[in-house]
Order: sequence, then C-alpha cells, then structure tokens
Amino acid sequence: MKDAKMYIPSYDDMLAAHERIKPHIRRTPVRVSDYLNGLSGAQLFFKCENFQEPGAFKVRGASNAVFGLDEAQAAKGVATHSSGNHASCLSYAAMLRGIPCNVVMPRTAPQAKKDTVRRYGGVITECEPSTTSREETFAKVQAATGGDFVHPYNDPRVIAGQGTCAKELVEQVDGLDMVVAPIGGGGMISGTCLTLATLAPETQVIAAEPETADDAYRSFKAGHIIADDAPKSIADGLLVPLKDLTWHFVSNNVSEIFTASETEIVDAMKLIWKHLRVVAEPSSSVPLACILKNPEFFAGKRVGIIITGGNVDLDKLPWI
Amino acid sequence: MKDAKMYIPSYDDMLAAHERIKPHIRRTPVRVSDYLNGLSGAQLFFKCENFQEPGAFKVRGASNAVFGLDEAQAAKGVATHSSGNHASCLSYAAMLRGIPCNVVMPRTAPQAKKDTVRRYGGVITECEPSTTSREETFAKVQAATGGDFVHPYNDPRVIAGQGTCAKELVEQVDGLDMVVAPIGGGGMISGTCLTLATLAPETQVIAAEPETADDAYRSFKAGHIIADDAPKSIADGLLVPLKDLTWHFVSNNVSEIFTASETEIVDAMKLIWKHLRVVAEPSSSVPLACILKNPEFFAGKRVGIIITGGNVDLDKLPWI
Repeated sequence: MKDAKMYIPSYDDMLAAHERIKPHIRRTPVRVSDYLNGLSGAQLFFKCENFQEPGAFKVRGASNAVFGLDEAQAAKGVATHSSGNHASCLSYAAMLRGIPCNVVMPRTAPQAKKDTVRRYGGVITECEPSTTSREETFAKVQAATGGDFVHPYNDPRVIAGQGTCAKELVEQVDGLDMVVAPIGGGGMISGTCLTLATLAPETQVIAAEPETADDAYRSFKAGHIIADDAPKSIADGLLVPLKDLTWHFVSNNVSEIFTASETEIVDAMKLIWKHLRVVAEPSSSVPLACILKNPEFFAGKRVGIIITGGNVDLDKLPWI
Repeated sequence: MKDAKMYIPSYDDMLAAHERIKPHIRRTPVRVSDYLNGLSGAQLFFKCENFQEPGAFKVRGASNAVFGLDEAQAAKGVATHSSGNHASCLSYAAMLRGIPCNVVMPRTAPQAKKDTVRRYGGVITECEPSTTSREETFAKVQAATGGDFVHPYNDPRVIAGQGTCAKELVEQVDGLDMVVAPIGGGGMISGTCLTLATLAPETQVIAAEPETADDAYRSFKAGHIIADDAPKSIADGLLVPLKDLTWHFVSNNVSEIFTASETEIVDAMKLIWKHLRVVAEPSSSVPLACILKNPEFFAGKRVGIIITGGNVDLDKLPWI
C-alpha cells in the first residue's frame, strides 16, 4: 500500500478524479477586478475555491481519495493530519460517503477550522504545532482506528484531485500565461503542474510562499528538499514541508517561487476582500502579495490565481 | 422631462435595458450553501451583485440611464443624491462613458463608499443625513451643473435597469418560489416586480427591511406611502423612503414585507461572510435575517436572494 501511494499520478488519473468527484464538489467561478488589474498591471483571474462547500480546494483531493476507497477500507474510514482545511475537507467528504474520519490538528489551528471539522463529524486529536509532534500523534491515532491515511498532499489521489482545479480554470479562461498558487506542502501546486503540463504546457506554474515559512523557496533554489520543523506565518495553511511526490512536481515543473512578508500578505488579503468582495484566507492572499511585489515579472500577463480557501476566524482579523 | 420620468417602465424597457447595459456590467454568479440551506430549511440562491465592479446592483440602473442619454445631455453629465452605492455606480457608469457626475451624499456615509465615488471621478457635495437636507442640497448642485437627474430609484430608467438582475436570476435558477430583496427606496424591489410579473408570475416578490427603518413595511400595511425623515439602521442603504414609481410596484406586486432587528441583521451578515465567503453589506443581509426569523414562511421553498452590495468599511465591522 505504501508503494502504491508513492506512485506519481498521471494526467489520466486527474481526468478520472474529475469524473469521480464532480457530483461532490462545486465548479467554482472565476472573479476579476478592474481595480486589481489596474493595480497590478496584469490581467488577474481568481479561481474561487473558497466557494467550495467546506471552503477550500482541498475537498477535491479529499473527495477523490474517499470516493475511490473499496467498501472494506471505507468501513474503517479515513485518517489524516492537517493544519486545517484538509481536515475539514476530508471530514466533509467522509460525511458525504457516510464513513468515519479521524484527524490530528495542531492545537493552535484557528477555531473556525476546528469548528468546521466537528460540524462535518470529524474526530479531532490535538497535537503541538510542529511536524514532529503531528507525525507522532498521527501514528498513534491511525494504529488505533485503522483508517486509511489520506496525507494532506503527499498522496497521488490527493494530487490528482487538486489538479482538477487547474483543468476547470483552463476551461474557464483562455490563454493564461501563468497560474500562481500558494505553496505549503505543495499539493495544489503539484496538481496544477500535473494538469497544465499536458493541457496547457505553455502556461507557467508559479508558487507563492510566506517569507517566514520559505522552505519550498529554499528547496527550489538548493535543488533538494529543505524542511523546517515549526515555521511561523499568518498563512497558517502553508507551514508544512514538501515531500517526495510534491518535490517531484515542484522540481520538474514549477517555473519560479516568489515570497512575501507578513505585512504584504495582510495587505493583499484586505485588497481581495475589498475589491473582489470574497472572504479569502491569509494563505490564499500570498499569490496577490507576490504579484504586487514583482510587477515587472507579471506586467501585461494573463495570470490565473487560486483563491485556495476562505475559512477565517471573523472575530480575529489580522488588520484590526 | 419630469413627466417622462414618471412613466411606469414596461417589461420591454427592462429587455432594452439589458441589451444596453450588458457590455458594462457583469452577469453575476449565484452562490449556494448547504449549511445555510440546513439552517433555514429552505433552498437559498444568492445572486451576488456585490461582484459588480463597483460592488452593487445599482450599476445596472445607473448604466441604463447613462448610456441612454443623448449626446447633448451627456455632455452636461449626470447628477444624483444617494446614501452611497447609487453614487458609486453612477460615477462608475459616467466614467465608462466619459461624462461628468455630481453626487450629494450624507456626511455620515461610510468612508469606503465615499472613496469609491471619488475613485470613479464622481464629485461629492456632502449633506446632513436626512431626506430634507439631501433634497435641498441636491437642488443647488443640479441647478449649478445642469446634470441630468438620475434618481437613485424613482426613475423608470433605473427601475428597468435593476429589473435585469431578476431576469438573470430566473435564467440561472429554475423554479423559484420567491425572490427576497432588501427594500429602502424600492428600486431593486420594483425592478424585480417588473421582471417577474411577466417572466415568472408564479414567483412571489418579498421585501426585507430593518425594523428601525420600517417605513416601507408601514406603508405596505397602511396602503399609502409613509415616509420618515431620518431613520437609523446599520443597513445604511435602506434609509430612504418609497416614492410614487416604486410605490406603484410595491403596492401592486409585492406579496409580503418582513422586518429584522439590528442584531438579527448583523448575525445574518456574519453568517453570509462565514458560509458563503462573500463580503456583503449590512443592507444585503436583511433578507437572510428575515428568512431565518420566519422559518414557517420559507420552509421547503426555493428562494432567490439578492446580495445587493459589498462595499463595507473593513476597519469597522459591526460584530467586532
């Protein structure tokens, strides 16, 4: 089973994933803003994955894993560790199929994300906010439940599922010069690479990362995975390291990685709320922050941007 | 000219308006939330007019007026008074056509709305937050500029333009039992009545109003227009009274008017931000507040809701 999970997903896996998950996800709309186009000097197309029912693109990969299980494994359910949205989305998909879901979450994850997991029937075990603690706690939970481990990103089923987002984006918007997505563990970026390498090989894939959690950027420059144990950023969805499968796509298919400071991320978040009038997470705001910071790179380009999620604690907004 | 403006717009006027304004507005998407459906017991379809470029449905009526002007009048531009979004949207439409726009706004209007008017080249003259002061100040401004008066709602061009929103909604969602929209002066409600009376006469039109600015509710029950001079509500777009044209539609075509308290409006606003993940104004949150308050009326129904606008001062959120 472990080897099967290290299989590099193919374009056909992504197509199969899209057919499998279509009844369970939304085909999210693309938003544009003349104001943000003027501000950036580019043509920006925001794919609103925050409009998925559980509020994040991760419902794509999670649904692909959950609805691909055979009946015997489905009876034991699924299990995972996640900084938040993967947990919510796996719980949601498991709820739709009517199977158990156990999740290990950092105790510091936003309350809104914990509430969402519980609303969907997920059972939470809390850990410390470090990779080490997360992996130790998870091993115990999985041993106790027998749930199928659906890794938040280093799983071919998950990467194939995330790739369906770029497929829809290319169907919705013609002639994209590039697609920019945030990078944490690299699941969305890997799925985007997987899809665009076949469907639109002329479209560059650009990753956007917080300066204070820039392990993917440093990995990309060094040519091998560099993992930090407990980086800190307001972009709480982007604090996990690359793994072998996502490194495969990042090292082979990503054109560039840009980084943005915490202040730049918050400024971009507020611009998205004000001018797109959508509720986007800090993690989802890193691409716009990077675009506004590097106007010479993006000027005149048609740029797709993945708004990855919108699960925010509305009582604790970073600019107030 | 005055008589022409008191003409009751027809369904064909609405169709002509849609053809005229299509190049200048967005066909906004419809959002759904399984969570809010569960909470309300109804099937809710939210038409996101907050996604218009200037952030409100009022760009429809404003564009219809601006792009319908002959060249001689267009040279003198347009003028209006507005609690906010009509001013922004008229400025925006005038900017697109390249003609002047003068607006009278209450000094208490949200800073975000004033900023938007100025960004679109509108020239603001401030007045006190009362109907009396607004009308006096406007008379002076209009006399000085010769701009064509585009009333925020009591104008057949504006009502025909607003009616295009319900046309799109009916094209996007089948079998609506009712459409609920907020009511202030009654422009959106009148346009909705105009369109649905012909296109979907089986669909009821329901108006939603703040308890603390319930002049439309009291007018509806009394059978004649009751106007308050300076009502107060967090729903700052709904503080103006009905006028003869909008009263025509309200008295003939509206099935029911519900009201909600300030607390109920804020609670509904937060639910929309959290579960639809869109930025909606307090005014836009009154319909959901009324639906949640009257579950027996809406249970099991397919309900269209107009999210009328999303211009909010993000530094002053009502729940923080």
